Amino acid sequence: MTALAPGSRVGILGGGQLGRMLAVAAARLGFDVVTLAPDASPPAARVAARHIAAGYQDPDALALFAGAVDVATYEFENIPPDTVRRLMDLGTPVRPGAEVLAVCQDRLPEKAFLSSVGLRTAPYIAVDDAADVRAGLASLGGAGILKTRRMGYDGKGQVRIMPGTDIDAAVAQCGSGPLILEGIVNFTAELSVIGARSASGEIRLFDVPRNTHAGGILRRSIVPSGLPGDVEAAAGRAVERILGALDYVGVMTVEFFWSPDQGLIANEIAPRVHNSGHWTHEACRTSQFEQHVRAIVGWPLGDPSRLADARLENLIGEDAARWPELAADPAALLTLYGKGEARPGRKMGHVVRLTPRT
Amino acid sequence: MTALAPGSRVGILGGGQLGRMLAVAAARLGFDVVTLAPDASPPAARVAARHIAAGYQDPDALALFAGAVDVATYEFENIPPDTVRRLMDLGTPVRPGAEVLAVCQDRLPEKAFLSSVGLRTAPYIAVDDAADVRAGLASLGGAGILKTRRMGYDGKGQVRIMPGTDIDAAVAQCGSGPLILEGIVNFTAELSVIGARSASGEIRLFDVPRNTHAGGILRRSIVPSGLPGDVEAAAGRAVERILGALDYVGVMTVEFFWSPDQGLIANEIAPRVHNSGHWTHEACRTSQFEQHVRAIVGWPLGDPSRLADARLENLIGEDAARWPELAADPAALLTLYGKGEARPGRKMGHVVRLTPRT
Repeated sequence: MTALAPGSRVGILGGGQLGRMLAVAAARLGFDVVTLAPDASPPAARVAARHIAAGYQDPDALALFAGAVDVATYEFENIPPDTVRRLMDLGTPVRPGAEVLAVCQDRLPEKAFLSSVGLRTAPYIAVDDAADVRAGLASLGGAGILKTRRMGYDGKGQVRIMPGTDIDAAVAQCGSGPLILEGIVNFTAELSVIGARSASGEIRLFDVPRNTHAGGILRRSIVPSGLPGDVEAAAGRAVERILGALDYVGVMTVEFFWSPDQGLIANEIAPRVHNSGHWTHEACRTSQFEQHVRAIVGWPLGDPSRLADARLENLIGEDAARWPELAADPAALLTLYGKGEARPGRKMGHVVRLTPRT
Repeated sequence: MTALAPGSRVGILGGGQLGRMLAVAAARLGFDVVTLAPDASPPAARVAARHIAAGYQDPDALALFAGAVDVATYEFENIPPDTVRRLMDLGTPVRPGAEVLAVCQDRLPEKAFLSSVGLRTAPYIAVDDAADVRAGLASLGGAGILKTRRMGYDGKGQVRIMPGTDIDAAVAQCGSGPLILEGIVNFTAELSVIGARSASGEIRLFDVPRNTHAGGILRRSIVPSGLPGDVEAAAGRAVERILGALDYVGVMTVEFFWSPDQGLIANEIAPRVHNSGHWTHEACRTSQFEQHVRAIVGWPLGDPSRLADARLENLIGEDAARWPELAADPAALLTLYGKGEARPGRKMGHVVRLTPRT
């Protein structure tokens, strides 16, 4: 593809904080940003040149959006694939494409895909009802995590099942869609690889953060990870294979579990910039947001090298009320997402702390 | 003053690249930005939550703007002081205030003010016509720079007068306003001090860049400057005095000339973020843009410490056509301002190159 010139228009499907940080990165390279999302004035729209407030499957809005942008991307993987296909039918390139969504939107083909590129995953069984879950548990040693196959994020749509858990209630809690029962992985550390592939096939990876979740939500990412170098290298090579196999264009993030005895286990693919990579904005020559923009507009990738060690801490729900203390802490590099209401579990912002590179 | 909470609204008078980078910095801290400028869609407006397209003295637009923001600032010093006063009458705090503009908008009181805080300036004479210029030149050794007292920037409104220069033509070229004739300063280096003062009187300075101009327009800034430490320290102390004397709130930049025999000579005060500080975005924990936002919203200042050495190069006019080469250079951290037409002398963007801190 031809590289888009500055002044071209970048469309973003979705209006949350990832779209907001992508929009700012696109503007910094001289692009005009158009967002499309259902809300009237979501966080991303408030830093964009234009916002179209409409549902993702509104045909008139998609036609308007397609006419207003030169390339489009999405900030979350639960965008309807039909939306992407319709935009492409209208002549608007969408990067990454619809095929990637088919892999990433359903935990079942996602696990199969991860296996196909030589990665281990947690053991898993597709289940539809409580009887399936009971049968599956037997083969998983009596415990597992029941998950919706689609639309899960931040621990939503997941129930941990242990001996004694009310299985009917667990199934009911996961709603009406197809489910997957995964074996529990005992791990020493969680890590993620954030990598980018350009339209010409060039691949660059950021340094690997080690992540800590609580209640299914990312709390902290630390880089360098402190994990063995060969573990990071193996995870990186795996992501290079994934990017190539999908003919991917943009930034992708793959989450892994690791333990000395089991090695690396791939958890999931996010076809986008990722919360565990927010520190790249402060610590790296090129942020994950700029890297994604460079890829989708057909530019060469930027230099992802890191200038400092970094610790990212998420501000979730009422954490956002800590802003006066954080504003007064010179070591706290603060980003707030412009969300009004600090609902429990809602990601409101993050703090990055830099220390000299070790 | 009370610190404004995230979600408050920050108004920016002016729509250029400085406003654009300020708007992004304000959004990053969770503020909503409203811009006011005459153009329909200037660079800053395209990253702001709302834009009011109106002249700076349009009373209805100013009332609308005052009602839409919790604090206002300006991105350039040639804003009419009446605009600032009217906003303050409407109950909107404007930082920095109108008094600062009175000092910075006219080279005559500016020079007097610089002298009052113990700084040397170029010798100068207020002149109104060619006869005044001829008389003045005699006392300045026969050469000087004739400048408009108001509205000059990027070398506009300036004519260098040497023996043989057509003085009537030079006066005509400067237009109809009051003029100033300044003696020529022979200097070894130009430097600038970018400093901030918070509402509580706290002062923080960025490291001092050494600047190179061509044709009156900044071409390059380099930090560290390579100048003697006592020169940088003296310039820093002078800016601390200036900030305090003006009870200033926000980021200010003071340009100096320096030579070993004459020492420091203050050139001019910019009551704003400055082109020679753009590298702070890439190289420092807190950028000049975030620092200005922190000051005007009543927050404590951020840590301006520097992670890397930096070289800033401006992209002026047709330089912007170099974007494909710059996009492919991993060492070039690129910012483009979203300006359409690359007119000669127009600042279109800049490149920052980082190297390990020396």
